Amino acid sequence: MSEKLKPKTLPGFMELLPNEQILFNKMKETIQKTYEQYGFLPLNTPIIEDAKILLAKAGGETEKQIYRFEKGENDLALRFDLTVPLSKYVTEYYDKLSFPFKRYQIGKVYRGEKPQRGRYREFYQCDIDIIGDGKLSILNDAELPSIIYATFKNLGFNDFTICINNRKILNGLFSSLQLKENSASILRVIDKIDKIGADKVKQELLEEIEDKKVEVIMQFLKIDGDNNKKIQDLENMGITDETFVEGLNELKTVVQFIKLFGVPEENLKIDLTIARGLDYYTGTVYETFLNKYRNLGSVCSGGRYDNLTEYYTDRKMPGVGISIGLTRLFFLLMDNKIISAENESISDALVISMSDEYEKVAEVATILRENGIKTQINIEDQKLAKKFKCADRLNVPYVIIIGEDEIKNNVVTLKNMVSGEQKTTTLEEVINIIKR
Amino acid sequence: MSEKLKPKTLPGFMELLPNEQILFNKMKETIQKTYEQYGFLPLNTPIIEDAKILLAKAGGETEKQIYRFEKGENDLALRFDLTVPLSKYVTEYYDKLSFPFKRYQIGKVYRGEKPQRGRYREFYQCDIDIIGDGKLSILNDAELPSIIYATFKNLGFNDFTICINNRKILNGLFSSLQLKENSASILRVIDKIDKIGADKVKQELLEEIEDKKVEVIMQFLKIDGDNNKKIQDLENMGITDETFVEGLNELKTVVQFIKLFGVPEENLKIDLTIARGLDYYTGTVYETFLNKYRNLGSVCSGGRYDNLTEYYTDRKMPGVGISIGLTRLFFLLMDNKIISAENESISDALVISMSDEYEKVAEVATILRENGIKTQINIEDQKLAKKFKCADRLNVPYVIIIGEDEIKNNVVTLKNMVSGEQKTTTLEEVINIIKR
Repeated sequence: MSEKLKPKTLPGFMELLPNEQILFNKMKETIQKTYEQYGFLPLNTPIIEDAKILLAKAGGETEKQIYRFEKGENDLALRFDLTVPLSKYVTEYYDKLSFPFKRYQIGKVYRGEKPQRGRYREFYQCDIDIIGDGKLSILNDAELPSIIYATFKNLGFNDFTICINNRKILNGLFSSLQLKENSASILRVIDKIDKIGADKVKQELLEEIEDKKVEVIMQFLKIDGDNNKKIQDLENMGITDETFVEGLNELKTVVQFIKLFGVPEENLKIDLTIARGLDYYTGTVYETFLNKYRNLGSVCSGGRYDNLTEYYTDRKMPGVGISIGLTRLFFLLMDNKIISAENESISDALVISMSDEYEKVAEVATILRENGIKTQINIEDQKLAKKFKCADRLNVPYVIIIGEDEIKNNVVTLKNMVSGEQKTTTLEEVINIIKR
Repeated sequence: MSEKLKPKTLPGFMELLPNEQILFNKMKETIQKTYEQYGFLPLNTPIIEDAKILLAKAGGETEKQIYRFEKGENDLALRFDLTVPLSKYVTEYYDKLSFPFKRYQIGKVYRGEKPQRGRYREFYQCDIDIIGDGKLSILNDAELPSIIYATFKNLGFNDFTICINNRKILNGLFSSLQLKENSASILRVIDKIDKIGADKVKQELLEEIEDKKVEVIMQFLKIDGDNNKKIQDLENMGITDETFVEGLNELKTVVQFIKLFGVPEENLKIDLTIARGLDYYTGTVYETFLNKYRNLGSVCSGGRYDNLTEYYTDRKMPGVGISIGLTRLFFLLMDNKIISAENESISDALVISMSDEYEKVAEVATILRENGIKTQINIEDQKLAKKFKCADRLNVPYVIIIGEDEIKNNVVTLKNMVSGEQKTTTLEEVINIIKR
C-alpha cells in the first residue's frame, strides 16, 4: 500500500451529488430559457481577466476578497461579479454591438470570503442587463420586473413579491430636508425598520436630526396601502425638490408599464425603504422576496445605474439590470426544504439483463434512445439485486429487464419503480408507456 | 476627461460576439442533451481545487502550465482537465455513488500554454466517463462510440469516422518481438506514417531494429480492408502473446457491440496505428475525424484506463471515457468556414414602434412571449431607420411594427427580414406565421 492523498473539496465551494446537480441544472436552464424568451443575448466572458482591468472600480472589501495572482509576467484575477466583465466587453466591442445592448450571462464568480454556512467562494450569478449608448429609456426599468416575474413563475413559485423603489425619491426627500450629508446614516437606521419597528427608528433618528425633519421622514415611512395609494401619498407630501419629483414620475411610469408587461398587481409592491447600497444604483431599484420565506432575504435584486463604463471610456453608458445569486438561492431552498432533489433522475429508463443477455440490452437501449427516451444501461456482471439497488440510487422511474424468456418471446419486462408494478410486453408498448 | 484604462481581454482567452456565442451555446447544449440521452449524470466540480490534490498525478508540461496561487494559507490551483476532479469526486463521495458511475461534465479548464492561434488558455472540455468499482465490463467500451456517433450526428455532421484500436494489440506485438523497451520510439515513428509514408517508416525503423522484426511490424502496418478483414488479418499473424490475444479479443467484442449500439459500419474504422500517448490508456482507444477535414485532427478522443483514482485510494477504479475539446473545435470549425454564425439570432421577433406607441409594444411583446415566441423589444426614442439597423445586427427574422394606424385598427405590421415582405394583419395571425 502506497501512501495516498486524501481528496477533499475546498471549504466554500459547492459540490453536489448527482441528483442535486440535476435539480440545480434544471433551475439554471429555466433561468436561461426565460432570459432568452425576452430576447437577451448570451455572453460568456473569461473567468480570468487582467487584474488592473477587473479592479479599476473595486476597492475595500472586494479588493480583499479577490483571487489575484501572477502567471509569467501577467497580473491576473478571477472575476468577482459579471458586471465589470460586461463593462469591459461593452467598451471593447462597442463598434460591433447594437444599442440598447441586452445581454444575459450565467456563470461562476469568485470571492474569497470567510467560509460560512451558505456563503460560497465560488458561486453562480445569473445576470441580465440593458445598456444604453448615451441614454436609456426609463421603460426598460419596467421590462426587468416582468422577467423576474416570469423567471420565478417558471421556477415553480407563485407567492412572491417584487419590491420596487426609486433612489431619486429617497435622495430628493433628504435633499429637500437639507439632509444630504446624513443620508448614509439615515438609510442605515431606516433599513432596520422591519427588525426594530417604527418607534425605535424614530427614536434613533431624533438623536441625529431635528424633530420637524424626523416628522417628515416618519410620514414618508408610514406611507402604506396599494401601489396607487402610495404614489398618491407621495404626491400629497408636496415635495418640490427636482430629484424627488423626477423619481416619483419615473416610479409612476415604471409601475404603469410593469402592468403592461404582464406582472399581476399582487406580485408587485412599491417599497419606499429599499435603497440597495449607497453608490451604485441611481434610480429604480428592485428586490424580490418569497412571501412565505421572507427570512431568506432578496432572491433577485438589481436596479438602474448611470454609467457602466466610466473607468474605461468617456462615453456615457447608463444601464439597468438584475441578478440572481443561484448558488446561494439553491443552498437556501434546499436547506429550508423548499425544494428537494430526492427523486431527481437524469434517465427515464434503465435497461438490465437477467444474466448475460447483453446483445439484447444494447439493441433495446438503442431503440429507446432513438425514440427520445433517456436510457441508461447496466451491462456489468452483477447480480440482479445489485442492479436493482443501482436503479434505486439513480431514482430511475422505469427498469426494463431482459432475460431468456423475454428474448425467446421477443418482449421485455417493464418495472415501474414507483408503483412496483411489473409487466411483460412488446418494446413498442413499453415506449408508449414511458413516453406517457 | 479623466484618464481611462483601455479594457482588453487576455490573449489565449476566447471571447465571442453575441451571434457567435449563440452558435457556441447551441453546440454545447447539443452535446449536453446527447450525453443525457445516454443516461449520464451531470457533475459540476469547482474550478479551484487544492493544488496538492490537483497535482498528485501531474508533472512535466502540465505542472508548468498550471495556474497555481496562494490565498491566505491555501495553496490553490485551477483545474487543467476534468479527469483529476472526477478522480477526486469518485474517491470523496464513493459511499454515495452507485457503480458503474456514469457522469458527464462540461466545463472550462485552464492551461497557461504559450498563446498561439487556435490554442486557448481557458477552454471547454465535454467529457463522459464510466467508472467501475474494482472492474468494468469491456462492453462499456462499445457504448462510448455510439455516443460519439449520436453527438456528431446531432451537431449536424454525417461524414465522420470513429477510429478505434486497442493498446494491448500494440503492446502485445512489441512484447512478442522483445521490443517492449523500444515501444516509445517505435510508436513515434509509426505515428508519422500518414505524413511520410510506409517506406520511410520502414527505413527509420531499420535504423533501430533488426530486419526480421521490422518485417513483422510492416506486415502489421499494412493490414487493410474493412473491419472484419483487419481482425481476420490480425488473427492470421499467429501471435500468441497473451496481451496481444487479449487485446484482439477485446477489439472483436467491442466492434461487435458498437454495431448493436447503432453505429453504422461506414462510421467506424479499426485503425491499428492509434496509440494516444504512452502512459494513460491501457486498452481501447478512440479518435474521431471529420473525413473532409482530416487536417483538423481528432475532434473527439478517449479510451480505457486501468485506474482512475490511484493517487487517492487503494481501491481499483477502472474507467473508459471520451472528451470533446469544444473551444478548440469551435475555433477550427469557424476558422475553416465549416460553420457560420452570421445568421444566428436569439430572438424570433423584435417589436418596435413608429413613434411613441410604447404601451402597445409592451402589450404585444407580452402576448408573443406568452405564446412561446422569443421576443425582444426596442422602446428607445430612436428613429425608425436606427431601429431597423438594430434588427439587422440582431439577425432577427421578424420585425413587428406598431404605429397609430395599427393601434386604431387593432392590427400589427409584420416584416419578414429575410424576404423583405411586409404584411399588416392580426396579432393572432402573426403568431401563427412566426411559429411556422
